[in-house]
Amino acid sequence: MSSTTSARHAFDALISDRGLAFGGDYNPEQWSRETWREDVELMRQAGVNFVTVGVFSWATIEPRAGAREWGWLDEILDLLHAADISVDLATPVASPPPWLGVQHPDILPVDRDGVRLIAGSRNQFSPASRTYREHALAITRDIAERYATHPAVRMWHVGNEYGQIDHGDEAAREFRRWLQERYGSIDEVNRAWNTAFWSQRYDDFAEIMPPRRMPYLVNPAQSLDFRRYSSDQLLDCYTELRDAIRQTGAEQPITTNFMGFFALADYHSWAGEVDVIADDQYPDPANPNAPSEIALVQDLMRSLGGGRSWVLMEQAISAVNWRSHNVPKSPLRARQDSLQAVARGADAICFFQWRQARSGAERFHSSMLPHAGADSDVFRGTCQQGADLRLLAPVGGSRVATDVAMLFDWSSWWAAEEPARPTERLSTMTEMNRWYRSLWRRGVSVDVLSHDAALDAYKVILVPHAYILNSATAAALTAAAARGAQIVIGPFSGVADENGGIMQGRSPVLLRELLGVSGEEWAGMPDEPGALRFADGFGPSEPQTASILAEHLRTEGADVMATHDGGELAGLPAITRNGTAWYLSAVVSDGALDAILAAALASASVSGAVPGLDVLPEGLEAVQRGDVLFLLNHGIHSVEVPVTAGLIDLLTGDETAEIVGIAPGEVRALSERHTR
Amino acid sequence: MSSTTSARHAFDALISDRGLAFGGDYNPEQWSRETWREDVELMRQAGVNFVTVGVFSWATIEPRAGAREWGWLDEILDLLHAADISVDLATPVASPPPWLGVQHPDILPVDRDGVRLIAGSRNQFSPASRTYREHALAITRDIAERYATHPAVRMWHVGNEYGQIDHGDEAAREFRRWLQERYGSIDEVNRAWNTAFWSQRYDDFAEIMPPRRMPYLVNPAQSLDFRRYSSDQLLDCYTELRDAIRQTGAEQPITTNFMGFFALADYHSWAGEVDVIADDQYPDPANPNAPSEIALVQDLMRSLGGGRSWVLMEQAISAVNWRSHNVPKSPLRARQDSLQAVARGADAICFFQWRQARSGAERFHSSMLPHAGADSDVFRGTCQQGADLRLLAPVGGSRVATDVAMLFDWSSWWAAEEPARPTERLSTMTEMNRWYRSLWRRGVSVDVLSHDAALDAYKVILVPHAYILNSATAAALTAAAARGAQIVIGPFSGVADENGGIMQGRSPVLLRELLGVSGEEWAGMPDEPGALRFADGFGPSEPQTASILAEHLRTEGADVMATHDGGELAGLPAITRNGTAWYLSAVVSDGALDAILAAALASASVSGAVPGLDVLPEGLEAVQRGDVLFLLNHGIHSVEVPVTAGLIDLLTGDETAEIVGIAPGEVRALSERHTR
Amino acid sequence: MSSTTSARHAFDALISDRGLAFGGDYNPEQWSRETWREDVELMRQAGVNFVTVGVFSWATIEPRAGAREWGWLDEILDLLHAADISVDLATPVASPPPWLGVQHPDILPVDRDGVRLIAGSRNQFSPASRTYREHALAITRDIAERYATHPAVRMWHVGNEYGQIDHGDEAAREFRRWLQERYGSIDEVNRAWNTAFWSQRYDDFAEIMPPRRMPYLVNPAQSLDFRRYSSDQLLDCYTELRDAIRQTGAEQPITTNFMGFFALADYHSWAGEVDVIADDQYPDPANPNAPSEIALVQDLMRSLGGGRSWVLMEQAISAVNWRSHNVPKSPLRARQDSLQAVARGADAICFFQWRQARSGAERFHSSMLPHAGADSDVFRGTCQQGADLRLLAPVGGSRVATDVAMLFDWSSWWAAEEPARPTERLSTMTEMNRWYRSLWRRGVSVDVLSHDAALDAYKVILVPHAYILNSATAAALTAAAARGAQIVIGPFSGVADENGGIMQGRSPVLLRELLGVSGEEWAGMPDEPGALRFADGFGPSEPQTASILAEHLRTEGADVMATHDGGELAGLPAITRNGTAWYLSAVVSDGALDAILAAALASASVSGAVPGLDVLPEGLEAVQRGDVLFLLNHGIHSVEVPVTAGLIDLLTGDETAEIVGIAPGEVRALSERHTR
Repeated sequence: MSSTTSARHAFDALISDRGLAFGGDYNPEQWSRETWREDVELMRQAGVNFVTVGVFSWATIEPRAGAREWGWLDEILDLLHAADISVDLATPVASPPPWLGVQHPDILPVDRDGVRLIAGSRNQFSPASRTYREHALAITRDIAERYATHPAVRMWHVGNEYGQIDHGDEAAREFRRWLQERYGSIDEVNRAWNTAFWSQRYDDFAEIMPPRRMPYLVNPAQSLDFRRYSSDQLLDCYTELRDAIRQTGAEQPITTNFMGFFALADYHSWAGEVDVIADDQYPDPANPNAPSEIALVQDLMRSLGGGRSWVLMEQAISAVNWRSHNVPKSPLRARQDSLQAVARGADAICFFQWRQARSGAERFHSSMLPHAGADSDVFRGTCQQGADLRLLAPVGGSRVATDVAMLFDWSSWWAAEEPARPTERLSTMTEMNRWYRSLWRRGVSVDVLSHDAALDAYKVILVPHAYILNSATAAALTAAAARGAQIVIGPFSGVADENGGIMQGRSPVLLRELLGVSGEEWAGMPDEPGALRFADGFGPSEPQTASILAEHLRTEGADVMATHDGGELAGLPAITRNGTAWYLSAVVSDGALDAILAAALASASVSGAVPGLDVLPEGLEAVQRGDVLFLLNHGIHSVEVPVTAGLIDLLTGDETAEIVGIAPGEVRALSERHTR
Repeated sequence: MSSTTSARHAFDALISDRGLAFGGDYNPEQWSRETWREDVELMRQAGVNFVTVGVFSWATIEPRAGAREWGWLDEILDLLHAADISVDLATPVASPPPWLGVQHPDILPVDRDGVRLIAGSRNQFSPASRTYREHALAITRDIAERYATHPAVRMWHVGNEYGQIDHGDEAAREFRRWLQERYGSIDEVNRAWNTAFWSQRYDDFAEIMPPRRMPYLVNPAQSLDFRRYSSDQLLDCYTELRDAIRQTGAEQPITTNFMGFFALADYHSWAGEVDVIADDQYPDPANPNAPSEIALVQDLMRSLGGGRSWVLMEQAISAVNWRSHNVPKSPLRARQDSLQAVARGADAICFFQWRQARSGAERFHSSMLPHAGADSDVFRGTCQQGADLRLLAPVGGSRVATDVAMLFDWSSWWAAEEPARPTERLSTMTEMNRWYRSLWRRGVSVDVLSHDAALDAYKVILVPHAYILNSATAAALTAAAARGAQIVIGPFSGVADENGGIMQGRSPVLLRELLGVSGEEWAGMPDEPGALRFADGFGPSEPQTASILAEHLRTEGADVMATHDGGELAGLPAITRNGTAWYLSAVVSDGALDAILAAALASASVSGAVPGLDVLPEGLEAVQRGDVLFLLNHGIHSVEVPVTAGLIDLLTGDETAEIVGIAPGEVRALSERHTR
Repeated sequence: MSSTTSARHAFDALISDRGLAFGGDYNPEQWSRETWREDVELMRQAGVNFVTVGVFSWATIEPRAGAREWGWLDEILDLLHAADISVDLATPVASPPPWLGVQHPDILPVDRDGVRLIAGSRNQFSPASRTYREHALAITRDIAERYATHPAVRMWHVGNEYGQIDHGDEAAREFRRWLQERYGSIDEVNRAWNTAFWSQRYDDFAEIMPPRRMPYLVNPAQSLDFRRYSSDQLLDCYTELRDAIRQTGAEQPITTNFMGFFALADYHSWAGEVDVIADDQYPDPANPNAPSEIALVQDLMRSLGGGRSWVLMEQAISAVNWRSHNVPKSPLRARQDSLQAVARGADAICFFQWRQARSGAERFHSSMLPHAGADSDVFRGTCQQGADLRLLAPVGGSRVATDVAMLFDWSSWWAAEEPARPTERLSTMTEMNRWYRSLWRRGVSVDVLSHDAALDAYKVILVPHAYILNSATAAALTAAAARGAQIVIGPFSGVADENGGIMQGRSPVLLRELLGVSGEEWAGMPDEPGALRFADGFGPSEPQTASILAEHLRTEGADVMATHDGGELAGLPAITRNGTAWYLSAVVSDGALDAILAAALASASVSGAVPGLDVLPEGLEAVQRGDVLFLLNHGIHSVEVPVTAGLIDLLTGDETAEIVGIAPGEVRALSERHTR
């Protein structure tokens, strides 16, 4: 039983019924009944139509083993329903009550150091503990049976931000079971992990342990498989509860909240198990690249859902509490962040959380209704967003189209960041963000795809850093190039097989023919970046460099677009093109990267969301969703953008002339379809 | 049985008998009898009249369970007495012998990670362990019974630098007992800790644990109460032994050594339990602000004792050993440090330690008698100090008066530094020191008071950073303002209630009327400090800034003295004045802070110790103790200071003209009372 | 049974038979039989004549308790023998199979935190575990019995990079046994450790523990003895297996691989137990001082072997994997590194490893045969080295002579780096490298000697930083000075006795007469270095400074060569000379240090390897081994060097004119003896 079409329809029906969903986490168990009434009144005032209830209510519902306190939950669901506010009802399993760990220490997770973690924070459970699983199942079944037909409940929220890792004995047992399933025999494990290295051969599954504290570097294949297991084990926690809900006859969509490019769960394997993609997004307002970085996350979420609309399940309306220094968002910035998500395919805009927690570890996490109360710019901003989202209802359900794919694979990311590699300065996510930013500046969206996705539809396929890349992907890239697609491969790609074993031969072994080059050594570069020399008539006018990592490379048919100019690699190719297949064998500077990507887009005749503007004004984001062109000014200067005359701005009702001016922080949603 | 008047009198009598006390820790158990004789001879040569004996002698007295080796201690006390050197006799309980932890592992502390700490260093005991407590009690009773009437013994020194924290099962039991006493019921704990947040509800006290390693952020209220419990538990260790000593009929003052603004003990609750305040002070010679920072500590110590004189129990005569880089003090600097303590109320000047340890972890901690021996500048400096202190005997018992109070509260400090707050860049102690330095530069001393202290006597009341501030304190501040006192409140004050719960409403909720302002959001500031614009005719001429943290603020009657000039908060108030109540809603630069404090002092007609000098020459410290004006030149240039003519310098016997010149490192002690 | 003369002869015979040995670690258990055949073919092509087999083969030989899988090893030894490749056969005890720790958890080491380390990496054994020792002994005996007479086997390689530390109960037992042997009685332990300090007295050996996690600083004497014990315990692991091999009648040399100045083993106590010194050397190509730093290591290795030739057992042919950023070596650089070792006494040049591991934690450690295969510059470089080494065969067995000794002592190093000292900025190895570099730039080699070595043969004796220095060494230095040798003593020397207890009296107590000075305090210096003022006509022309640590010093007969110019120590001596004994009482800048060392060399009439060149051109290294003058250009410019005309370059066959030009990366091996 995985994601079902009917449940997805139920989500689309929700949006169709209610317009874009707007709301946030609501934790009434922290507040008095008087406050509940004020909450509902203010929610209506703000235009809230959708709240998540019960994420952390396990101890309230089950204050001691086997108890069930439903009264408060009955009451709050009725109260919300009466106010026409729909509910995303949570299974409260993310944070077990303290008594559960006290009575059953086997539910408590053990960390790498062998330390058993205790209650007092949240999430103190091992995904491997059958005891935990049974208790979570029991309360989930009871909740689902009780509320499956409650008219307020329009969605189910299983767990919360699944990301718990256990290294204890419970995990050892489950890890071995997972290995047994994956490999069948201990010999196959030994082969896959190459345990002949360092005398690590296992004679029996029972000898295998999670990677606890060791004298030196762990076997990277063991580490990689433990990451895979951990993601799968968490997913199993999710699906077991999802199925239990469905078995009660519940027909609402069921999901759980993802966390963008989250290192502890392979969302490519999760995406098919949720009825609608939901994501938590916390860009740092102090990060000047936050707009493009979160846009990449949003493109990922849209792609995980196969292009269907998704739920922004959590975000902050102002500051968060968990960074060492937390800069707030202005109401204008918060509004822009929400509208950016809509532009990139979100049909629901939610926050953590409705009312700011009076105490606890998140007392300084901003909320739609702050400590200061309704007489505050934050709450006025909440109301503004509610009003804006009502105006954007026509966007609901529509899609973002693109001709550009960017490949990303969790296993590759994991393996690429195992220690003891050529350099720790090379980061998959840094490269993903650098490559994406170049496109984002052009108004080009991407589909972020797994390595086994179909590539037929794309004119440009980008592979910023695919450390692991198997033969099927290599074949698909080769086929795409053969039909004329532009392929751009980044450095240190195609290095390893699926267990992180290094491909034997000149590199990248499987892409050698596609790229018309071969390499023999990856080289950590000196601290001082090395100059690049571009082929005549190619490349940017400003000097460009390579740094971090390069490759001792030779051509085997490819054209050399840039060489290393000086240093140990002087004269060797740094950037090559073989027909439509580009290879960046070194980490090149932003300008060089941008030039390659611009050339690839141009060769494929891919243009951005604003026709005629090759590169958008500094800070401007442009994305076409359905028939609406979203223009968001993240910069500090007003910009003017040429558009089709006669579009209607859904947010203001204004009709466009041929140039639209956009002040800093402002957003335009220009529709072809709507008129006032 | 807490601090007694008669025991305090016994301390005053000691000073009256002996003049200012001078000496240090003396650990004869590390040395031979030949060395003892040399020690006593050199002590006499140096003017030492007071030594602390036995702090680390448990294993010497009780080499195995139940043994008692008194002979060496009898002998050394007699030897000291014969040399007319008084003794501060320690209960040797700070560092149990190894055998105690081997035989009774329950005495060993467990840290946050669950690791049981072992012998080999010092202090390996849990304050919660009844086994430890019984053994400590037994040896303390025996020592007190044996030496209570020894004529050398003029003071008791219980334990040493109490600051041990245990997170183990012993501590769990005692923490629960403490919570039961504080809250009465588990429901009240749940309410105070707001355990509805993150499903942390406890059904029974037995479920509560010390904050060991957890998956994520601990409940800050739990953490705050564990800090309170830990301080109280340590205090209970102290009082139990103090009472045992007193029960033997001992009449000497009993104390233990504090450690300034020490994070692990709330000395406001401790101060009433010691007969005389004693403190250990280790300013870093490499810190250019050390003179004002240690002056603040000394003002705290004087204030803890209700203005009575105190004991500088430990300091270094030159370098310490425990910093990563240890810069020594010159003899002149060491002398000045001692005289600074006298100026600020100390009647006893002691060092750790008399003779430098030949080995062990403190082998590089300087001592009055260094490894090099008596033929050394350090020992000559020791002798000089002895001579100087004899000349300052007339100061003994006199007081330092001030019209300025500065509020400080350990719970507020603790709660303000819990993680997950707007910014970790705001530090209570940094703000305390910055505010104090402004006054110190003017020759203004302060009384450092708890939040529940009487404020009637003060013309200026400073609140640099009172994160927790209750309604009684708010009322007292309001009353003080009403009678015309200048009140200055620093940023992020009045934020939380006594359990760290955030006050609900516009902030600072309880000070809103007093300050005539209200705020709605605290804002971590961008890394680049933001400009301030002062009201016309106010503020310093140099540009000033705000950084770290500001507040989204509006006036409700207050005058705006400075606004933010640029950035997200442009135009909003940063500094306000409402009658006599000032509010600094942001962390402002030193110049801005200084201007406000100068204005408040001027409005209250408070002037410094040197009449006519608003700001003292760079590096000069001035403080009036009793009828003696102390002038200390911490700077690198000679300074000239206008004084009353005809004062006698107690240190030189010179009579002052109208201007006194002071070379770098020099000290003047100008008495109105004494003539040659 | 320690190192034997006949076994050493067996090594010399190997070199005499085969020429310089050339090869590396070979791990056939990771590869197929097809690959073995390719390996042997490529080894022959590369000139490999010596490989180390079996270092990590325990789990392959003994896949479960008691099993013995010899077939593969029989086969590979025969294959190698057939190809005329000699074998250094390992006892595979460095990394036990996982099953051993699972079945016998007592073999697993416990770290400082009390965490038991597990399998999944390598080296998970406690040197104190009798269970581990018995299993290691059994497999070693069986291997030795089986292969002692195999004609391929020409050397035994026991364990690998011994450096395992255990803090668990097994270690506690053995540490106590070691203490009992060292001290005889618990009273002597208490005396040596000065346990009267901090109440640490032990009543029984059973109370003593390894230095696990403690509340504060560990007793430095306990820590020092634990380091000594740990080194001795590891050595005992080695000698037990060595003896077992010898008992089978094996006649080959037996050794284990050292790791330069390795902090966990006192190689002065190990050197006598190996038949030939073997060392692993991994200079960082990104470190500009790598050439002189590794030269110092090579001089140490030669000295550990009493001047006899040694084995470079492991090095990297290009990049390593374990730094956070790994810069490769060019083939030229790799060749130069090998030839540098030959120049400094190595008769065997080996690499880790022959074929790059396909996976596992060292998949990115370069190898003689890289992932890319034989069609690569790395492999071509391997072949070039093989050819070069064949040409250098005449050098085998010859020696490097020098008149300069540099003292180094592991106990002193350990004690000097215990925490809680005057400054953590002073580092023994940094000083060793700084002093050595000054000589290296002059073409002067050194013998690196233990403190109890005979000094009679040396004209210059350098003591960069001998924190511990006993009376015998002090007497030997004094005697050497008396016969006219130049002695140069660095700062913070002669501070402590053999247990780290500080010498009592003016410092350096035992060298006071030799140096004609005495000090009374060591002083951490301000961050800003302080100026030095040199005596007239002495010292470099550029301004020089002192920093980090200085000493409050006075002369007692010595001449003052430089004083501190400013600061607290202004006017006090910084550098003194008393006859032929120099004292640098402060850490002085490179130029000042160089001036002193140059003066000492000049006074002793010691000149470098290139007569007439006082200081070599930047980057040039010169060393005379036997009758061959090695000139290595590590710099980035070509240099010209005056040499005797008519020498033959062994590497090229060219005959020298009076000037020889050397390009960057090039090496000359100019022989007096050989002609074409």
